[in-house]
Amino acid sequence: MPYVNIKVTREGGPEGTGPSADQKAQLIAGVTGLLHDVLGKNPATTFVVIDEVPLEDWGIGGLPVQEHRAQAQ
Amino acid sequence: MPYVNIKVTREGGPEGTGPSADQKAQLIAGVTGLLHDVLGKNPATTFVVIDEVPLEDWGIGGLPVQEHRAQAQ
Amino acid sequence: MPYVNIKVTREGGPEGTGPSADQKAQLIAGVTGLLHDVLGKNPATTFVVIDEVPLEDWGIGGLPVQEHRAQAQ
Amino acid sequence: MPYVNIKVTREGGPEGTGPSADQKAQLIAGVTGLLHDVLGKNPATTFVVIDEVPLEDWGIGGLPVQEHRAQAQ
Amino acid sequence: MPYVNIKVTREGGPEGTGPSADQKAQLIAGVTGLLHDVLGKNPATTFVVIDEVPLEDWGIGGLPVQEHRAQAQ
Amino acid sequence: MPYVNIKVTREGGPEGTGPSADQKAQLIAGVTGLLHDVLGKNPATTFVVIDEVPLEDWGIGGLPVQEHRAQAQ
Repeated sequence: MPYVNIKVTREGGPEGTGPSADQKAQLIAGVTGLLHDVLGKNPATTFVVIDEVPLEDWGIGGLPVQEHRAQAQ
Repeated sequence: MPYVNIKVTREGGPEGTGPSADQKAQLIAGVTGLLHDVLGKNPATTFVVIDEVPLEDWGIGGLPVQEHRAQAQ
Repeated sequence: MPYVNIKVTREGGPEGTGPSADQKAQLIAGVTGLLHDVLGKNPATTFVVIDEVPLEDWGIGGLPVQEHRAQAQ
Repeated sequence: MPYVNIKVTREGGPEGTGPSADQKAQLIAGVTGLLHDVLGKNPATTFVVIDEVPLEDWGIGGLPVQEHRAQAQ
Repeated sequence: MPYVNIKVTREGGPEGTGPSADQKAQLIAGVTGLLHDVLGKNPATTFVVIDEVPLEDWGIGGLPVQEHRAQAQ
Repeated sequence: MPYVNIKVTREGGPEGTGPSADQKAQLIAGVTGLLHDVLGKNPATTFVVIDEVPLEDWGIGGLPVQEHRAQAQ
């Protein structure tokens, strides 16, 4: 009975405002299948929770994501 | 000094849009009391954080919650 | 289909080395029942994960727990 | 730059004591590839953290996992 | 390659609606620097994720934050 | 009343087996002070929980940490 939490920045997707419901469904199906294939886990008791994180709330390299990207260019 | 995180789908409640503030207060009181009763934990240093998760962000059985329910019927 | 994570310091319990299996079972039963009673959540799809955290890994008041307690006396 | 946390019960694997290092490597490769394929996420900044949870620390149906399985039979 | 998650109540900040983007940038810079100074961790692979939690979703002392503060006065 | 979770790989430190208790105390003091300085948060209600993650349980670039480092050289 695995529990998977996927955090991604809220961006991209068809409208640039984050993953679409369909893309999220692909993530849910994919990771549930992976846990079944690798460890034999039962999909019926596999939970997946996706969090979209606003860009200003995610840091890397000591900077918010957008500043980090601007600096990397 | 326990820390408890409760994740629930954003649905139900008096208006169908998720738990009410009063229901959340009941969860906070209940789990804090439970930790006191079972383990003797001090309520003054018991934190409870509740997350409401949009339905499209929660997967079970390899499907988003709503598709899973539709399929189960 | 709630997901609950309970973090407690690894101490106390019948042998002073953390909660017993029986105490953990009480936490699992209690919080699952609470979510059923307050929000009508189905126990069959309620997950509870308990983490025991070593004392040196938990801080409060800017100090590891044990130093904080020593100072509070 | 996704962050993925996978929690599984500590059981199974080649020795019955939990997933092997190789199985974990398969999970890491699989979920990183999934995020690249579905959302175009860069593997270089995709973190995956796996937690193995002792059976007595995982509850479902209001019971620790093993009691829940025993009862289901 | 540390991962840091900071949860704060959604309040305060320049407009009373939570930390500003600049304050979040200070948290990201500060904790990334701390991990570098204390443990030699590479900022390039240090992730920081900040969550703002609505007041009604945070409990302490068995009460939602605001009731707890009102009672403490 | 912030809650901070710091996850680091279990390595380094004075004996190569992970951060020492003293280093953890420095992380706790540092991040608690940071939250006080930037957001005015009260140290008395600031929790910090540190998790040491075994190397085989941490992935980056689609590989477990150690393979990733070996490949990067």
